[in-house]
Amino acid sequence: MDVATGSPDGGRPIGIFDSGLGGLTVLRAIRREMPDESLVFLGDTARVPYGTRSPSTVVRYALACSSQLLEYGVKLVVVACNTVSAVALPALRNVLPLPVLGVIEPGARSGVQASLTGRVGVIATKGTIASGAYERAIHAIDSTITVCGNAAPLLVPLVEEGWTEGDVPRMAVERYLAPLIEAEVDAIVLGCTHYPLLRPVVDEVLRTSCPQPVTVVDSAMATAADLKRLLTEQGLRCSGSSIPGSVRLLVTDMPAGFSALASRFLDRSVPNFDVEQIDITTPAAGLSLHA
Amino acid sequence: MDVATGSPDGGRPIGIFDSGLGGLTVLRAIRREMPDESLVFLGDTARVPYGTRSPSTVVRYALACSSQLLEYGVKLVVVACNTVSAVALPALRNVLPLPVLGVIEPGARSGVQASLTGRVGVIATKGTIASGAYERAIHAIDSTITVCGNAAPLLVPLVEEGWTEGDVPRMAVERYLAPLIEAEVDAIVLGCTHYPLLRPVVDEVLRTSCPQPVTVVDSAMATAADLKRLLTEQGLRCSGSSIPGSVRLLVTDMPAGFSALASRFLDRSVPNFDVEQIDITTPAAGLSLHA
Repeated sequence: MDVATGSPDGGRPIGIFDSGLGGLTVLRAIRREMPDESLVFLGDTARVPYGTRSPSTVVRYALACSSQLLEYGVKLVVVACNTVSAVALPALRNVLPLPVLGVIEPGARSGVQASLTGRVGVIATKGTIASGAYERAIHAIDSTITVCGNAAPLLVPLVEEGWTEGDVPRMAVERYLAPLIEAEVDAIVLGCTHYPLLRPVVDEVLRTSCPQPVTVVDSAMATAADLKRLLTEQGLRCSGSSIPGSVRLLVTDMPAGFSALASRFLDRSVPNFDVEQIDITTPAAGLSLHA
Repeated sequence: MDVATGSPDGGRPIGIFDSGLGGLTVLRAIRREMPDESLVFLGDTARVPYGTRSPSTVVRYALACSSQLLEYGVKLVVVACNTVSAVALPALRNVLPLPVLGVIEPGARSGVQASLTGRVGVIATKGTIASGAYERAIHAIDSTITVCGNAAPLLVPLVEEGWTEGDVPRMAVERYLAPLIEAEVDAIVLGCTHYPLLRPVVDEVLRTSCPQPVTVVDSAMATAADLKRLLTEQGLRCSGSSIPGSVRLLVTDMPAGFSALASRFLDRSVPNFDVEQIDITTPAAGLSLHA
């Protein structure tokens, strides 16, 4: 290893995975917070989206992704997917021999901090909302907070299609935010890694349709800050190097338009990266729910 | 076997598969055409959608689905998915030991028959449009026809979300049909099994935004008619019984809202059916591309 390390393990890369490419918004935030860390990102593009699937299938897919990251010698796993964080975090923490960080707890804490009235809204996939994970995470911090969640399943396909401005996304966002506005929330957590790309539309809808001021929370930045603290606490920071770490992207499918979509999520923050296609549809080796 | 058969194989069920549940519109058409036939339908709901994936991944998934249907003793396989029909039919016909029928050729023929001006439009998934399969199938019938295809990836998530009326689907359909209207087509093939559920919106957009009369073609009915002819030709009809055949639904994931979605596609045509969840994410046993 050619990077100075705070511990023997510090020079190993951070593993990050997502159902698809949305988690690249989390990779981008981690890169900004700690440019010296090396990153291995796995996007399960052959089976995206997870947000509409059953919990048992999400757990099975998450175990396969994590198992794959272990083979790249990662020192920690970041679950850069709200659906997996909502549904599979206990299973992953149960079987993985290293720290696992999800995006829900950091997002929930940011939402609580942003609210003055104690009414917090969350939009997310069907799977995340049905799990009740944001409500549990927010109530673990402050049980007096009223949480208003709404599933917004069309927003992921809108982002993937590149329809992030104009009438169609505006009307979809209006429809999904209406119950939150009605519930008079003053903070809204974007509970899906795709949603930051619709941030301008969300801001516009709130400006034109919402009487009260609302703070919009993107959990990627909060997750990157929590990650830095966790690595430092556990002596796992690759401290001391001014050389940028490497970034490796693994995907399970490389469909037409892949590069354009990846670039939209990365937003020039990672100018050069290699992409490699791998097969993980075989069952997770050596990992099981009851290990 | 308790059903009178035209041949020793006639009493075996017809196998039908789709990436998800959209293919139930094809099952419904087959049921109407031949109520005496027994049907086994496999929807790969754990990996839907296929329409945004690469051809190699679609071929791999299609082989796994077909392999699974063989274990149910089917006499023929109907590929009730435009993306798979567009991308994987040669591979399937190469390795499967029984007749394989796709939905593209029947849909293409209906489109050609419906057009008076020789300008035919097609809307479909990204994978289907990128494959050029409709263009090839139409030109195989009549090489003088002008084909105008447009990928409409948001329509599947709109149907799955149940947004089949109102402003959002209307504006999405308007946007996707605009180049076809501009090209002055007089027949439009709905090249995806989900799209019949948006038929009222398509009709409305054509009525309000299209100066020329246009015939809309749904390939499910054409596929059912072709299937009946093929079974008869090959002596595979389960002829003679007035007892309705059995209908068995297999899915690889059973997410929340499954029953409501399945009922929308089946539209009361199959009042009683059993649903069973199976695992096919392990590689296809005994089948390979080069077998």
